[in-house]
Amino acid sequence: MKLTAKTELIKEIVDIAEGIGALELRLHIETDKLWYRVVDSGNVAMASVEIPSDAFSEYSFEPSQICVDIKKLKNALGFGGKEISITRQSLESNAIIVECAGYKSTQTLLHDATVRKDPQMPALELPGSIDIIGKEFATIIKNISTESDKIRMVISNGVFSVESVNEGQDNVVKPLSTDELIGVSGEGNSLFSSDYLISMSRNLGGDVNIGLGNDFPIIISFYVAGGHGKGKYLLAPRVEA
Amino acid sequence: MKLTAKTELIKEIVDIAEGIGALELRLHIETDKLWYRVVDSGNVAMASVEIPSDAFSEYSFEPSQICVDIKKLKNALGFGGKEISITRQSLESNAIIVECAGYKSTQTLLHDATVRKDPQMPALELPGSIDIIGKEFATIIKNISTESDKIRMVISNGVFSVESVNEGQDNVVKPLSTDELIGVSGEGNSLFSSDYLISMSRNLGGDVNIGLGNDFPIIISFYVAGGHGKGKYLLAPRVEA
Amino acid sequence: MKLTAKTELIKEIVDIAEGIGALELRLHIETDKLWYRVVDSGNVAMASVEIPSDAFSEYSFEPSQICVDIKKLKNALGFGGKEISITRQSLESNAIIVECAGYKSTQTLLHDATVRKDPQMPALELPGSIDIIGKEFATIIKNISTESDKIRMVISNGVFSVESVNEGQDNVVKPLSTDELIGVSGEGNSLFSSDYLISMSRNLGGDVNIGLGNDFPIIISFYVAGGHGKGKYLLAPRVEA
Repeated sequence: MKLTAKTELIKEIVDIAEGIGALELRLHIETDKLWYRVVDSGNVAMASVEIPSDAFSEYSFEPSQICVDIKKLKNALGFGGKEISITRQSLESNAIIVECAGYKSTQTLLHDATVRKDPQMPALELPGSIDIIGKEFATIIKNISTESDKIRMVISNGVFSVESVNEGQDNVVKPLSTDELIGVSGEGNSLFSSDYLISMSRNLGGDVNIGLGNDFPIIISFYVAGGHGKGKYLLAPRVEA
Repeated sequence: MKLTAKTELIKEIVDIAEGIGALELRLHIETDKLWYRVVDSGNVAMASVEIPSDAFSEYSFEPSQICVDIKKLKNALGFGGKEISITRQSLESNAIIVECAGYKSTQTLLHDATVRKDPQMPALELPGSIDIIGKEFATIIKNISTESDKIRMVISNGVFSVESVNEGQDNVVKPLSTDELIGVSGEGNSLFSSDYLISMSRNLGGDVNIGLGNDFPIIISFYVAGGHGKGKYLLAPRVEA
Repeated sequence: MKLTAKTELIKEIVDIAEGIGALELRLHIETDKLWYRVVDSGNVAMASVEIPSDAFSEYSFEPSQICVDIKKLKNALGFGGKEISITRQSLESNAIIVECAGYKSTQTLLHDATVRKDPQMPALELPGSIDIIGKEFATIIKNISTESDKIRMVISNGVFSVESVNEGQDNVVKPLSTDELIGVSGEGNSLFSSDYLISMSRNLGGDVNIGLGNDFPIIISFYVAGGHGKGKYLLAPRVEA
């Protein structure tokens, strides 16, 4: 049983989970795809990733779940090789062997019973939608968060606004009209923790879609593995104090 | 009422005040120039800056004083735009609106009564004078300060020396003769805190003039805004323990 | 009495001693060479360096020993000059004058009686030997040390392995066969502290030879001064807990 892929792909998969502070991953390896869904310890944020098997250069795993320690896997990603392979001797084996750049890392799997089960991604119908370049969204979040630890996002009259939430009349707002966006529609107005948004948005390459509601969770959908796979972040709104 | 300028110019103006640790600025906006004079909280250092109105691409402010929070203004300078504009609705308004790269930052002005009045720059006749490239002066200060938290500067017999002040016989001295200086004249010998000199000298671009006396303040005069405006630092001497 | 050399050479000499955490150096200046041997405060590691006099552009010192403070000498190396000279007025002088980039640093010598005498480098016949590019060895040490604070090195059947020592079955191993090495021979198996190996291996340029035994010290031999001089590190093994 062996998976082989570009190191960059495995790094992307792991970084997305780290974007909500996850330390452990329950990876589902199915015939046609690898996927996970993970929730942060505070139950505020979720990440999900789904990668079709053909994004891997080798994919000969028995359908199974493996629970991995993210930190150990990341160490192996730093060894400098362009490809990485993950081998599990059999479905009974309690370890994986990660090979990269000539290094062979034996990593005990986490015990299935100790790792949280897959959370349900709630099926939300969000009234607002924005399409934007991921890196531009990340820059806006970083700039606004220098002013406040809470960020309000609003869609109103075809304009998407990201703004700080300060005490007093101080305020920073970045309004984005249609010419700065790929697309915008509907309405929405919700408040979020900037810390989560910052670490999530670091992992957004390419074009992303943002679903927004009124005091509702935000859902950020994006591509992984150069468009082959897909990822999703969900972040619960904050209630204003 | 609106000022518009290159972001770089506003950054220069603000950095010079930060070079003495200032947190607040009382900006004087007059018909032909913008200026400030500020003293540090320990009454050891002063900075002054004067920028003619034609260094701004737009300059339509009523003559007035505004007291701004340096940190808030700096945040807006980091948004990534090449130009920045500062608007105040009227002379009665207690806020400015800073616009940069499509961000709109509303910043409450500090209350006039709480911000220290402009200090007087003492009119000193200093017997020694050095003309030197600002960046070279900054490098010398940085090097000598690795050895000591006090720095002595001496002009004697046409040589300008910068030296560490250590206990015992250990000592580092950098003597600069006429071929390493733009100019040197007179005599002087004073001791200064290296911390202040380091943070001041970071902001010295182009050629600078240094006035030196005997146990007297140092005055560093330099150009701002590519030669359009001018700046000045004054630092009180330290008395040897 | 004066030594002049490229700043880079003096930096190399000093960095090697710093690689075992040395703070003081007893430099032997002899007719044909400059050398030192130094042991770390924990008696776990030794460094020795020997530079022939012709590696210096000026070498007119009376045969003598001088005890220098490494930190003071390093400061002077940061002044930015390509050449550095070290002058001692006479054999009676208790200071050296270090000149670099126009800076003149007077450094009191450490008192001979307070600086540890030269340790003996034990004459070991180590059964295993590896020749490897120094920078590649450093990279392997850095990678393996992300996993463990102890590193085991093994030569067996013509393969040199570097591996982490973890509790449980987790493990990272990098086996190097003949095509990744310049040479390998004999047998050996010893355990070392990764902290020492990391800071030592940073200073290994060019090709290095590693001598390995069974629960015996490691000896790393390397060239200094672009092949003119030579250096040696010795590190005592750790006993497994």
